[in-house]
Amino acid sequence: MAEIAERPARRSIGAQRNPASEEAILAAAQAVLMENGLAGFSIEAVARRARAGKPTIYRWWPSKAALLLDVYHNHKRTHFSHAPKGNLRDDLIVYLNNLFSAWRNPTTGALFRSVVAEAQADADTAAALTAYMADRRCQSSAIVIEAKARGEVRDDIDPELVTELLSSFAWSRLLTDRLGDDDADIIKTVDMLLSGIAKS
Amino acid sequence: MAEIAERPARRSIGAQRNPASEEAILAAAQAVLMENGLAGFSIEAVARRARAGKPTIYRWWPSKAALLLDVYHNHKRTHFSHAPKGNLRDDLIVYLNNLFSAWRNPTTGALFRSVVAEAQADADTAAALTAYMADRRCQSSAIVIEAKARGEVRDDIDPELVTELLSSFAWSRLLTDRLGDDDADIIKTVDMLLSGIAKS
Repeated sequence: MAEIAERPARRSIGAQRNPASEEAILAAAQAVLMENGLAGFSIEAVARRARAGKPTIYRWWPSKAALLLDVYHNHKRTHFSHAPKGNLRDDLIVYLNNLFSAWRNPTTGALFRSVVAEAQADADTAAALTAYMADRRCQSSAIVIEAKARGEVRDDIDPELVTELLSSFAWSRLLTDRLGDDDADIIKTVDMLLSGIAKS
Repeated sequence: MAEIAERPARRSIGAQRNPASEEAILAAAQAVLMENGLAGFSIEAVARRARAGKPTIYRWWPSKAALLLDVYHNHKRTHFSHAPKGNLRDDLIVYLNNLFSAWRNPTTGALFRSVVAEAQADADTAAALTAYMADRRCQSSAIVIEAKARGEVRDDIDPELVTELLSSFAWSRLLTDRLGDDDADIIKTVDMLLSGIAKS
């Protein structure tokens, strides 16, 4: 913006266009990913496809990884196969089930695996993943906060830690190719967390 | 072995040597890793250092990643700062604490992060990680099996799933740079799992 304000004379009406919207860039990013795969995914390719300038993209996404995680998130949601039920046990099962279902899709699972892998060596990707996960923890902890309001959860329980524990379980299953194809471990895990493992 | 048996005439007494022991190769691998870093770690470099043939190394480790995970495991154990206590709550806290302590060491943490990252794209590394984790689950579930024998754990609880849930939590904290420096979340997590989150 500062650069544009400094050099108004260089701009002509003909060169102007509506700035590409956030949605249009996201759609372009999705298309680039589907056509070029992860190896061919770049801010340049998305900018070209969206007919947008790279600064426009960087206005909304600080890095390629941040944009990729938004595409991933949209993709992931299309695989969510269960709606919330309004009681804690079912809602935690739905939450974990949705993660497993989404990651069992080869494209969605591979996309997230590659972001996690890249985050181990690349600072921009790590920052994007950190921001994304903080947002996810905040969103998913609502399940526990609402259950607390209904009187289903002990007062001393940290809501974010509950869903973090479940999503961590899904992470390690994804990253070690152990998502499986049934829900037995999902249900066992949620029931362990609900009732505890100690003999009372 | 089959190849040696086929061509006895090619072998001379002078060319023979005692086969490098498993321990000597592991020590050489550790030294190569410390001196060359992860980028310079290879079966070739370890073989040279141990004065062993590559087939000797492959006799014990199916891949570079398998050898690396053994070096990592030895390294990790030197950071274990707590001994088991003989009651479930303390033992689970020690278990999780030891993982966090080991991974807070930059070398040990970076080593495991790089193996997990590489496992997302390389089949040999994935296989080595799968085998390593299966062994770890078997070992760590002993904590819960012993507690069950002492009558501390409900009969329907799956011991491997308990420690898997805790180690998954540690994984996701490691992989997102959130190991922190205090034990508050470790204790909260173990207590959630012991007593459950549901209001009874």
